[in-house]
Amino acid sequence: MPISFKDERIELAHGSGGLAGRRLIEGLIAPYFQNDLLSKLSDAAVFPVQAGRMAMTADSFVVKPLRFPGGSIGSLAVHGTVNDLAVSGARPLYILANLIIEAGLSVAILQEELAAMAQAASESGVLIVGGDTKVVEHGKADGLYISTAGVGVVEAPRALSAEAVSIGDKVILSGAIGDHGITVLLARGELDLSADIKSDSRSVWPLVKALLEACPQALRWMRDPTRGGVSASLNELAADCGYSIVLEEESLPVDRAVRGACEVLGLDVLHVANEGQFLAIVDAASAEIALAALKSTPGGSRACIVGEVVETKKSPRLLVRTPYGASRVVDMLVGDQLPRIC
Amino acid sequence: MPISFKDERIELAHGSGGLAGRRLIEGLIAPYFQNDLLSKLSDAAVFPVQAGRMAMTADSFVVKPLRFPGGSIGSLAVHGTVNDLAVSGARPLYILANLIIEAGLSVAILQEELAAMAQAASESGVLIVGGDTKVVEHGKADGLYISTAGVGVVEAPRALSAEAVSIGDKVILSGAIGDHGITVLLARGELDLSADIKSDSRSVWPLVKALLEACPQALRWMRDPTRGGVSASLNELAADCGYSIVLEEESLPVDRAVRGACEVLGLDVLHVANEGQFLAIVDAASAEIALAALKSTPGGSRACIVGEVVETKKSPRLLVRTPYGASRVVDMLVGDQLPRIC
Repeated sequence: MPISFKDERIELAHGSGGLAGRRLIEGLIAPYFQNDLLSKLSDAAVFPVQAGRMAMTADSFVVKPLRFPGGSIGSLAVHGTVNDLAVSGARPLYILANLIIEAGLSVAILQEELAAMAQAASESGVLIVGGDTKVVEHGKADGLYISTAGVGVVEAPRALSAEAVSIGDKVILSGAIGDHGITVLLARGELDLSADIKSDSRSVWPLVKALLEACPQALRWMRDPTRGGVSASLNELAADCGYSIVLEEESLPVDRAVRGACEVLGLDVLHVANEGQFLAIVDAASAEIALAALKSTPGGSRACIVGEVVETKKSPRLLVRTPYGASRVVDMLVGDQLPRIC
Repeated sequence: MPISFKDERIELAHGSGGLAGRRLIEGLIAPYFQNDLLSKLSDAAVFPVQAGRMAMTADSFVVKPLRFPGGSIGSLAVHGTVNDLAVSGARPLYILANLIIEAGLSVAILQEELAAMAQAASESGVLIVGGDTKVVEHGKADGLYISTAGVGVVEAPRALSAEAVSIGDKVILSGAIGDHGITVLLARGELDLSADIKSDSRSVWPLVKALLEACPQALRWMRDPTRGGVSASLNELAADCGYSIVLEEESLPVDRAVRGACEVLGLDVLHVANEGQFLAIVDAASAEIALAALKSTPGGSRACIVGEVVETKKSPRLLVRTPYGASRVVDMLVGDQLPRIC
């Protein structure tokens, strides 16, 4: 006898271990994610593994607003989790999703996000195999927060880490930057500004896979520049590997509308969050092979070599070289330009 | 150069990808959980696996208040995750922890919970290998929510599931019930009632391991009766396996203070949440061996056989037989007796 869910708003009772909770899970949530591992609705998903290395990641999503051009909290949660695995050199396999719902949330909104998660998972080739639902009182959350966990099988033959990085290695960027952060900023409607921009939220695994196939031994380190942008990722890399990173300003791919919005708002695009790009450090000798592999993969046409790893003068830094030959230091921000962009 | 964290309250900037976020993670959080997998602070934890079966679980914790006699949100998050793996027949290995923090939370409170997580992980034999931190504005959370993910290696030789359950199988309960739910209810201070009770929050893996060693082939199904209590777990089992379950009321272990509180408050202890107990269905022929294994394991002295699986008359139900021979049906509640007990 199939269970149907007919309520219009989520209430505290739906977060219980009782019938209302079971109705929410079996009648509303689980049907979006049909697969053999989920169907058991047990306390844990059990799956077979081969001997090797696995990667495991977890992330929370509190983006505001819940929906924005190019994505929503549901697709972001799946892509963000998939990408953390991908940049660890792992093929993403399974995702678990914890929902923390504010009582009063419209079921229609929840359904939109469940559908967004299901679609993103299907497009990314991962299964959503379980999760958990909690409901908190009005005013104790902001509609919906999603926490995820993901596991994948490591396919990178070498350990990817800052220690593997050497002077002369090239910095590759998978595509244009700044789209996600600017999109969310504008979607909040607090600025009298609009632009034809949408979030870049997507799985980067197909691009990572192309790199792993083209030059598995040349790949040193990868990171998806989300919160804090390219600047945070490369400043962390510099601090961790002890070398400096120089980016060529002219080579950084930035869409015109994003560049314009950054100029109007006084933002450095290097600090703006991305949700569908990654940075890779590759051995210089293989950089062109790596770039060609990315460019020939769907979604990789705007990949480019944007800089290199150089010797450190005083302390490890991120430097940007302007077209006129001058260099400026780009530090990490203390906070973010704007909170809750993921 | 070690990073030190000196702020007294968590602010929005600490949830960023910038320096303030790095200071929070490297200066405050990571030092509580030193281990080789965590030390890399990369996007995912990478670990070796043997061929076999793994279990993966995720859970969120929104308990209110954050601290209560016998535990707190931090220890609960670890024990709850460990127990979901344990009742799936898996040895818990690694945990990831996502923190969703309300801006303004005192750092001292956060530190208490980090210490509680570290201690619970150490006692449970699991490593906390990563996680994520988000900060939301005042009034957009309730101090602190914790979402976790856990993985473990399945050691149960047979698949544990409702389909494996047969008529005549025995129901084993690991110890006294109702302690956690009643403790949290009283800790809220909304009732003019106090009692010398503390939460049963603990890892049940040592007890599960004893069962797996004593009678690996006899174990059919396990569940930790958290939200919704024993009633929710066994009603779900009845619905899933198609048989009814009969409990002997006299054999249910309930502490005197818990029983008294339930009587005063008009609660059925079978609906009250537990955080350190589990239910196991075992083949009748091995039930005494299973019980002896539990009783000889530290923390298992109050384990007992509390009922059995019987043929269904009309529809699968949970029945409780009183000492006078009468039976009453115990349904699942629609909601919970009280929300946010985990």
